[in-house]
Amino acid sequence: MLNFDFYNPTQILFGKGRIADLSKVVPADARVLVLYGGGSIKSNGVFDEVMAGLAGRTVFEFAGIEPNPSYETLMHAVELVRKEKLDFLLAVGGGSVIDGTKFVAAAVNFEGDPWAILEKRGRNITQALPFGSILTLPATGSEMNDGSVVTRKSLQAKVAFSNKLVFPKFSILDPTKTFSLPVKQIGNGVVDAYAHVMEQYMTYPVNAPVQDRFAEGLLLTLIEEGPKALANPEDYDTRANIMWCATLALNGLIGAGVPQDWSTHMVGHELTALYGLDHAQTLAIVLPSMLRVRKEGKRAKLLQYAERVWNITEGSEDARIEQAIQRTQEFFEKMGVKTRLGDYKLGTQNIDAILKHLESHRMVTLGEQRDVTLDVSRKVLELSL
Amino acid sequence: MLNFDFYNPTQILFGKGRIADLSKVVPADARVLVLYGGGSIKSNGVFDEVMAGLAGRTVFEFAGIEPNPSYETLMHAVELVRKEKLDFLLAVGGGSVIDGTKFVAAAVNFEGDPWAILEKRGRNITQALPFGSILTLPATGSEMNDGSVVTRKSLQAKVAFSNKLVFPKFSILDPTKTFSLPVKQIGNGVVDAYAHVMEQYMTYPVNAPVQDRFAEGLLLTLIEEGPKALANPEDYDTRANIMWCATLALNGLIGAGVPQDWSTHMVGHELTALYGLDHAQTLAIVLPSMLRVRKEGKRAKLLQYAERVWNITEGSEDARIEQAIQRTQEFFEKMGVKTRLGDYKLGTQNIDAILKHLESHRMVTLGEQRDVTLDVSRKVLELSL
Repeated sequence: MLNFDFYNPTQILFGKGRIADLSKVVPADARVLVLYGGGSIKSNGVFDEVMAGLAGRTVFEFAGIEPNPSYETLMHAVELVRKEKLDFLLAVGGGSVIDGTKFVAAAVNFEGDPWAILEKRGRNITQALPFGSILTLPATGSEMNDGSVVTRKSLQAKVAFSNKLVFPKFSILDPTKTFSLPVKQIGNGVVDAYAHVMEQYMTYPVNAPVQDRFAEGLLLTLIEEGPKALANPEDYDTRANIMWCATLALNGLIGAGVPQDWSTHMVGHELTALYGLDHAQTLAIVLPSMLRVRKEGKRAKLLQYAERVWNITEGSEDARIEQAIQRTQEFFEKMGVKTRLGDYKLGTQNIDAILKHLESHRMVTLGEQRDVTLDVSRKVLELSL
Repeated sequence: MLNFDFYNPTQILFGKGRIADLSKVVPADARVLVLYGGGSIKSNGVFDEVMAGLAGRTVFEFAGIEPNPSYETLMHAVELVRKEKLDFLLAVGGGSVIDGTKFVAAAVNFEGDPWAILEKRGRNITQALPFGSILTLPATGSEMNDGSVVTRKSLQAKVAFSNKLVFPKFSILDPTKTFSLPVKQIGNGVVDAYAHVMEQYMTYPVNAPVQDRFAEGLLLTLIEEGPKALANPEDYDTRANIMWCATLALNGLIGAGVPQDWSTHMVGHELTALYGLDHAQTLAIVLPSMLRVRKEGKRAKLLQYAERVWNITEGSEDARIEQAIQRTQEFFEKMGVKTRLGDYKLGTQNIDAILKHLESHRMVTLGEQRDVTLDVSRKVLELSL
């Protein structure tokens, strides 16, 4: 096992009816900004529950945080917080709204141009407004971690930052609030959580059996529960299990003490920045090819994955590995997420542009062994055509 | 899955050489009390590393916190902290030292007689001194939770309390510091951690597959690594895996959203209070009989346990269950912890006294279904003769 630090102070309030507990976790004298996305929370009842939970506080709203939240939009929220002297933020939505709220929290009292927060990947954050979240879309894990990804549209750049000052104070996870999600978002969320686990699990062995088994436990549960969520959108336990899986997939626990990859995410980010693909779509395109191209470096863990997650024990090593990757790809397709560049009308002609973006973002030695050069990324993209 | 709250703000610093990081996590101007047990830390080098990490701070020492830390001893530490106006506590040792430090932290500024903290099970704690821990004995999980058990010798009472104000600010887990532990303490620690998992896992199903798989992952790892730790005391990875298992066994994670039992612990506490048995010894005596006597209420999970943890798939349900319990008992014995009352020179003549103590502590409806009456506890003890 590798040396590690683990720290995660976010309070989780999980279950039916928990939005009412906002009254206990938001200070009674708070001046609150409620941040959200496209407005579905106004039609599905979530917004009314939130307002009831915040009764007695001064509340402002900021709508319109887009998927892949943009620096440009978020800076308008920063201005509103400054102007109205608000002191508590509440993100209501999925990972994009929560990621965006983390940026706003750090930017409000930042000295100088807040773009520097993204340039320095969050290392220069010295304070942040307190904030909580109401999760309505299980996927990214942002509700229980200190990471965020923000897009600057004018530069076509998707940039990740993190700092322990931007852990949510609390996150409320009510599975019933995910019942009305479009099928596409359920599928995306399950694929996203699955890829998060794989980035931390599918590297090389360091004798960390607990981390391995926790990761496998999440993968097995996503494989079992994902299709059930598509078939029975209002099955509470299915939604609860997916929701808790997605949170645990990226709260720091399964990655503590083990190497991590994240090359699939980095290549995927460029696909979103350049062509607007959903985050999960980019992961579904890149991950299977990434595993195939880098099979040798990941051989031992791929064989363990084949056996423990997919119950594949027959055939040569190479056959078992290929079968496990194939099953992974089929699972993504089963969740409604296509796995080929061609499915999104992208082809050979786009690869140079993607590589150029990777290079301009200095993403030229990715992965747990820092051996994913631009040449390797090219092979991965070519295999995903 | 049941509704739940999860909150755990303890920072973990895990790995070789981490005691040096004390200089980063203890305030530079702190007036520190270092609390420890019998003094082995003075002969094995840990104390010197701690003092080096605290260089520049004012440091006092308090030695002599006993296994099953006593109220009487801890109140002397409280007096010292008050007299010298100390403002930071550092527990160096195992669960007893950390549990004791939690009590001291809560008692120092408590208004009124601190015994009330134990009488109210910690609900009346309104503040606590900040404290950290250096763990030298993996077992109880106290390094990453907000629970504590204190014994009042004069009353022969062993009382648990908890409050989120007594989470350690940080805990340093350096597996190399466990190399010199006596074999008995390794065995006890593994059995203790195993029993903690079982109290949260072996109840009835609530459709919580992630919690089940995490619990099974811990059990499987303890079964694999425990005997290796006895055979090769200086194998780093073995010690690291056991240490992380013991922490995760009782940090709130695997018990979130599922029913919990804890009757084995409650009956065991009386054995320690009355006859001075090690905590782990009491668990090894009580747990197998508890599972046998309450087989019907736990049938579904016992069958799952037999299959997933012990790979038992053949035979009638009752045969599989009995075999799984037998294997559990054999595992405890293999770790050097005897599983019968008779092994500790206790017999039929002691049972009435144990039950009387349970009754006086109002432990008359224990377990996840509150159906462990004194009659059930009697059957359990008789089966453990």
